[in-house]
Amino acid sequence: MGIAKRIVAGDLRAAARLIRDIDDMVPEAREALKDLYPFTGKAYVVGITGAPGVGKSTLVDQMITHLRKAGKTVGVLAVDPTSPFSGGAILGDRVRMQRHSMDEGVFIRSMATRGAFGGLTQSTRSAIDVLDAMGKDYILVETVGVGQDEIDIVQSADTTLIVLVPGMGDDIQALKAGILEVGDVFIVNKADREGVDRTVNDLRLMIEMDEKRYKNGWKPPILLVQAVFDKGVKETIDEIEKHAAHIKASSETRSKARYEKVRNGLAEMIKDRIVHEVFSDLIESGEFETSLQLVLDKKIDPYTACDTIISKRLRQGSK
Amino acid sequence: MGIAKRIVAGDLRAAARLIRDIDDMVPEAREALKDLYPFTGKAYVVGITGAPGVGKSTLVDQMITHLRKAGKTVGVLAVDPTSPFSGGAILGDRVRMQRHSMDEGVFIRSMATRGAFGGLTQSTRSAIDVLDAMGKDYILVETVGVGQDEIDIVQSADTTLIVLVPGMGDDIQALKAGILEVGDVFIVNKADREGVDRTVNDLRLMIEMDEKRYKNGWKPPILLVQAVFDKGVKETIDEIEKHAAHIKASSETRSKARYEKVRNGLAEMIKDRIVHEVFSDLIESGEFETSLQLVLDKKIDPYTACDTIISKRLRQGSK
Repeated sequence: MGIAKRIVAGDLRAAARLIRDIDDMVPEAREALKDLYPFTGKAYVVGITGAPGVGKSTLVDQMITHLRKAGKTVGVLAVDPTSPFSGGAILGDRVRMQRHSMDEGVFIRSMATRGAFGGLTQSTRSAIDVLDAMGKDYILVETVGVGQDEIDIVQSADTTLIVLVPGMGDDIQALKAGILEVGDVFIVNKADREGVDRTVNDLRLMIEMDEKRYKNGWKPPILLVQAVFDKGVKETIDEIEKHAAHIKASSETRSKARYEKVRNGLAEMIKDRIVHEVFSDLIESGEFETSLQLVLDKKIDPYTACDTIISKRLRQGSK
Repeated sequence: MGIAKRIVAGDLRAAARLIRDIDDMVPEAREALKDLYPFTGKAYVVGITGAPGVGKSTLVDQMITHLRKAGKTVGVLAVDPTSPFSGGAILGDRVRMQRHSMDEGVFIRSMATRGAFGGLTQSTRSAIDVLDAMGKDYILVETVGVGQDEIDIVQSADTTLIVLVPGMGDDIQALKAGILEVGDVFIVNKADREGVDRTVNDLRLMIEMDEKRYKNGWKPPILLVQAVFDKGVKETIDEIEKHAAHIKASSETRSKARYEKVRNGLAEMIKDRIVHEVFSDLIESGEFETSLQLVLDKKIDPYTACDTIISKRLRQGSK
């Protein structure tokens, strides 16, 4: 039986192996993903993002408990793109999640590896496909940080939670543009801390001002949460379900959301693959090293070196 | 007179226009950059990165004052990659920097635009080349956030400052892998806050443990700073100068640092250009939309769609 069939049939080892192969960018993983694709599209994907230290892992841990009590199966992907060199650290907080590891309804994996030239966003999307084909009801994708990587990753989610803590000061503005637009639900965690009113007010003001940007007519709610004491976690799940219902309510909204998700996914995949293919060839053939040496010796400038490499590799007029 | 010559001769308008063209990805900008390249390589580039809210802009503002007092000319690039949609917000903190705007020895620009498929890292590198060719002694590159984008951007710096604040808790570990390795100087800003001892101890421990990873034999110092009161800023500049002296002291270290910088720059440029070229063609020819529709209609899976697109565009066996 092929690996895809084994995964659909519930073989956890096969799923774990495929996710590892995806993370390692093993080319054969692509064939398995093609076979799995018809079985995807049923899971509800929730992205959880925010700066380090805001308590995302604790929140995810509590969400798992609530979802399990409601009889839902859960897949978790913990994405740690902060480590381009060491292949990612196991985060202390995630150890806590291990208490779910004996529960057959919960499947937790980390994505950490990134190739020399990116690929984490794409690997994460493929891993979501695997958990989806396994039949998980909910897939929680937790990222570290608030950069472009994280924004790209959460764009494959159906609902995106942005987690903040009180006291971020003026720089909450820095989060504004990129994050407001991908956030469907805002969580102010550690809500017993000083400055919570200001953080909520700042958020509310920005949401009100940006009415035109509401994704598909949804106004993002702001929730006060203390994940460590399980306060506000139930409400978080309620808001996710409301958001899901909002998307499903209109066929126009539903198809627009699906269009965006599939388009972003395809674009990312092409981008990722093309960079991977070109660099594999450039490194193997030694051409990258040769060009680099010419630039180091100041025999050519890097812009010209780049032009030469590109024109050799891209087929022109392929339209 | 060509734009490159005008920039080298000190024409601020020409420089501002070229940086805007780079940010807008105007293809002609590349020709100007080729002409400028021989005039680059003299500036000292300092990257300043850290999570939102840690006070990077205030620190940069104070650093400008100190560097100007020492008779150095300064270029500043404020990079805000958090906004893929709106083209970036003007951050409140940066308004403060405007007090330097009447000083001819200071040139401040923001980089904000990112094309549909990335490009900010490359635009920033090119903008650094412009400031360098203008003859700035120091170029300060301030980023927002601590994601992969920021790590890529600060890798074009000669010295990288990582700015933290006390009280980040357990999640300082989350910063560990990716950030420790790019940090040359660690700044604990807002050092009057509770938890400063723990933050410093955690940092110190991680630096000690990671001895093998010290970049080019340099052990990153940890500085206590209160940028808003100008405390510790002079010391920050002293450490940057010590780091510069460390790199220059050994020809092996110097050439290794240069090799890494040029290699990363060339790799990023190729990556960026190839994605840009392929997508321009895919969008213009309508092929992207056609493939997307097939995937939306479930006639093919995205993995197969991607294979087809790539094999049509990449020249095989070009080695």
